[in-house]
Amino acid sequence: MLPIDFITQLHTLLPPERIYTDPVECYSYAYDNSRKIFPPEAVVFPLTIEEIQAITVLCNAHNIPLTPRGRGTGTSGGSLPEKGGVALSLERMVRIIQVDLANRVIVAEPGVLNQEIQEAVKPAGFFWPPDPSSAGFSTIGGNLATSAGGPHAVKYGTTRDHVLGLKAVTGAGIPIKTGCYTTKGVVGYDLTRLLIGSEGTLAIIVEATLKLTPLPEKLGGLVAHYRDSISCAAAIVSIMGISKGPSALEFLDAGALNLIRNRFPDLLPAHSQAMLMIEVDGSQHDISEISQTILAACRNPGLLHAEQTTDTAHLWKARKALSPLLRDIAPKKINEDIVVPVNTLPQFLDQLASLTRHYQIANVNFGHAGNGNIHVNLLIDPDNKEESIRAEKCLNEIFDLVIKLNGTLSGEHGVGSEKRAYIHKEIDPPTLTIMKGIKQLFDPNNILNPGKLFP
Amino acid sequence: MLPIDFITQLHTLLPPERIYTDPVECYSYAYDNSRKIFPPEAVVFPLTIEEIQAITVLCNAHNIPLTPRGRGTGTSGGSLPEKGGVALSLERMVRIIQVDLANRVIVAEPGVLNQEIQEAVKPAGFFWPPDPSSAGFSTIGGNLATSAGGPHAVKYGTTRDHVLGLKAVTGAGIPIKTGCYTTKGVVGYDLTRLLIGSEGTLAIIVEATLKLTPLPEKLGGLVAHYRDSISCAAAIVSIMGISKGPSALEFLDAGALNLIRNRFPDLLPAHSQAMLMIEVDGSQHDISEISQTILAACRNPGLLHAEQTTDTAHLWKARKALSPLLRDIAPKKINEDIVVPVNTLPQFLDQLASLTRHYQIANVNFGHAGNGNIHVNLLIDPDNKEESIRAEKCLNEIFDLVIKLNGTLSGEHGVGSEKRAYIHKEIDPPTLTIMKGIKQLFDPNNILNPGKLFP
Ligand SMILES: Cc1cc2nc3c(=O)[nH]c(=O)nc-3n(C[C@H](O)[C@H](O)[C@H](O)COP(=O)(O)OP(=O)(O)OC[C@H]3O[C@@H](n4cnc5c(N)ncnc54)[C@H](O)[C@@H]3O)c2cc1C
Ligand SMILES: Cc1cc2nc3c(=O)[nH]c(=O)nc-3n(C[C@H](O)[C@H](O)[C@H](O)COP(=O)(O)OP(=O)(O)OC[C@H]3O[C@@H](n4cnc5c(N)ncnc54)[C@H](O)[C@@H]3O)c2cc1C
Repeated sequence: MLPIDFITQLHTLLPPERIYTDPVECYSYAYDNSRKIFPPEAVVFPLTIEEIQAITVLCNAHNIPLTPRGRGTGTSGGSLPEKGGVALSLERMVRIIQVDLANRVIVAEPGVLNQEIQEAVKPAGFFWPPDPSSAGFSTIGGNLATSAGGPHAVKYGTTRDHVLGLKAVTGAGIPIKTGCYTTKGVVGYDLTRLLIGSEGTLAIIVEATLKLTPLPEKLGGLVAHYRDSISCAAAIVSIMGISKGPSALEFLDAGALNLIRNRFPDLLPAHSQAMLMIEVDGSQHDISEISQTILAACRNPGLLHAEQTTDTAHLWKARKALSPLLRDIAPKKINEDIVVPVNTLPQFLDQLASLTRHYQIANVNFGHAGNGNIHVNLLIDPDNKEESIRAEKCLNEIFDLVIKLNGTLSGEHGVGSEKRAYIHKEIDPPTLTIMKGIKQLFDPNNILNPGKLFP
Repeated sequence: MLPIDFITQLHTLLPPERIYTDPVECYSYAYDNSRKIFPPEAVVFPLTIEEIQAITVLCNAHNIPLTPRGRGTGTSGGSLPEKGGVALSLERMVRIIQVDLANRVIVAEPGVLNQEIQEAVKPAGFFWPPDPSSAGFSTIGGNLATSAGGPHAVKYGTTRDHVLGLKAVTGAGIPIKTGCYTTKGVVGYDLTRLLIGSEGTLAIIVEATLKLTPLPEKLGGLVAHYRDSISCAAAIVSIMGISKGPSALEFLDAGALNLIRNRFPDLLPAHSQAMLMIEVDGSQHDISEISQTILAACRNPGLLHAEQTTDTAHLWKARKALSPLLRDIAPKKINEDIVVPVNTLPQFLDQLASLTRHYQIANVNFGHAGNGNIHVNLLIDPDNKEESIRAEKCLNEIFDLVIKLNGTLSGEHGVGSEKRAYIHKEIDPPTLTIMKGIKQLFDPNNILNPGKLFP
């Protein structure tokens, strides 16, 4: 329970319509895409940096946990107030502060949705490359805090590659300004990228200066179908060996294809057991040239069929629907987003199949194959205790495999609460100690999103 | 003077041929391109991470300053042992550990020269994009520690955009491992980019996992001459407004052109007062297309002449020679590398001219204009005290102008000792406090490159 004098003081900082304390109202801020539920004891909706600073100082004074939240689409429990306290929702800080096309910069508040950034600059021929499938309902603050990426990361990189500077308020309530407004700058330590991907544990991002990229002239699409995942993975390796590669390269295994077949009959050939959805971009000339090279790289004994397609919109829609479709059939699925070096994908998928066979865990796998980033979904029945134990064992071995192959446990979702028990598999104790030291420096009272990220 | 027992213990860590204590030998490690001179009291040449760790621990035990050094080409005094102590030269750690073309990765020790990285991967059709003009004689460790960039940064970004992971030994002597081996990864804080650009003040970089980029198919060149810098700067703004832009866009003012004319007669048209050297890359088709658009963007009332050129090698050689040529005429020049938003370049150059006229300081300006990164050189006679005072005042106002235009004090050289007195112009006190806290966390006894970067 929050102390009464804390609540009283909170009310001196914000008008009543921007403080929720009613448990019913708070409950809407209790969950994210991890499907865990931790209701906050209060939700606040600041509009300014000064308000955020004052709230943070107040939480420090009373030792109340404070958890930043964008739109709660995160997959690893990052925005959940596990230890109670206050949820700090950025959803009302939705101003686009400046669109500076001459310098290819947009400055925005953290609650602006990714999609709104795209819409603000698209008419002028630009985009902001980070493209999570949740672009329509996740905030740039959340995207920054998780260094979100999506299908186009294979060509354009992820969030951390497209940010010039930030304003933020540290866990101690101190406002800082990182980076600069220009495309080059080396004065002082790179605090910008230290905050990007820090999952709301170091500072609250209150303003972002984002770097824009010109929209590609045209898009082209290709699809390739395979008789199995392994030959499909071999084609991925070949495609990623081409110098002018794809702008998106998505892999779908048999399980993923079946999910789509159930929802969208007639979209996919019946015999396909693994599929690549490929996008290329550039001039018409580039597209023809790159498509030909990719089609050649697709060819191997497992290929069933590969072709250029003119209308890929319905395919991408189906691809984007995969996460929700999975939720429908397996609400408590274990949803990972491991990454392995691209040339180990055939080996990874082969050994993944052995492991899931061994532990008898139904699974569906798809993802951003050009980065070696695979969403491994273990489909479990939450009421089946014994199966859950098998799944945990299986997951543990999958993570060990990933690390053995020189991969990483998470390509985009982050650690949050979901993966913190595994972080020591990837990060050695001295490095973890340094990270904890940084946490302490930014947030000495451990009030900002406490307990997240670290084991 | 180093304590005898320290020297004795040092000798238990390294064989004699890898420890210099003779002042004559040490003197070769006393300077860099800042032309300041601070001889170390010892120079050590470790070959392994374990040796570096042991040396660092020993320096901590005796409170002896330890300054990492690549090849001493830095321009801001970063590698100078200002407070004496030990220079830690990485120049003998020159192994390329792994070339993994399938994953587009090269792993190397810090003493490998930038050029050697390029040579190792060029035959296979790759390059590592950071391209300081010093590539032939600067180390990747130095490039990482300064986040070096060069002409191609306008298209490809700087060092921080092309690194996957690092191994390093902190100032406290603790080995850490940052980042990962794959192109996506969000587990834990981004320590990789925290170390990149930290100028050897946080940790010694002992191994780097670098991301390779396919070489462009072909290169094309253009030149444009203007009757003055301001119209030339207006063309830069137009060129940077094109969606498919140049791979390099270098600006040279009248002073820079005259320097080249003196050394390479007949290379430049006599009437040109400002010049753009432009490179485009891609397929032949791309090059023709982009060149046409750029030529159109070059056109304005100040344009004297613009054309595509087939052989630009001699021009680039002249461009690269500018820094040394300047040293010849003004050994104590003040050499800055400020950055302003591209669309403020006309205003910046105009006001720079007013300032240097007002303070009567001869100056030569050139640089990576596509990033708004201009090398401002104030040519002063070191024996003229009064002129030096004027130059300092002028510089101070130039920096104020840069900050007013939303720029940054350094695009590639870093702070080191040369710019630390000005860092507060750009970085506010709370942000500086956080940076100092990070320094203390990595290097609690302040033995690693002490005094650098901070005012
Ligand atoms: C259907 C679906 C598809 C998805 N697809 C992708 C995908 O393709 N790629 C991908 O990367 N992710 C994807 N995600 C995950 C999620 O959308 C991203 O992690 C997104 O960046 C989270 O944004 P959010 O606004 O919802 O943040 P939240 O979920 O509210 O928060 C996420 C984390 O960021 C912190 N945070 C939020 N705002 C701030 C701030 N202003 N300052 C400091 N910390 C803050 C929170 O504390 C939390 O740790 C998907 C999710 C769903 C539901
Ligand atoms: C003619 C000339 C042209 C140049 N052109 C450019 C240019 O175009 N772009 C550009 O960015 N720079 C340029 N420079 C500057 C310089 O070359 C770069 O800063 C380069 O990255 C320094 O590399 P180095 O090996 O010489 O490092 P040093 O000068 O030895 O050290 C530079 C800094 O890095 C630290 N350091 C070195 N190695 C390590 C390590 N392994 N771990 C931790 N810290 C380390 C040092 O302590 C110091 O602070 C130029 C210099 C010259 C002389």
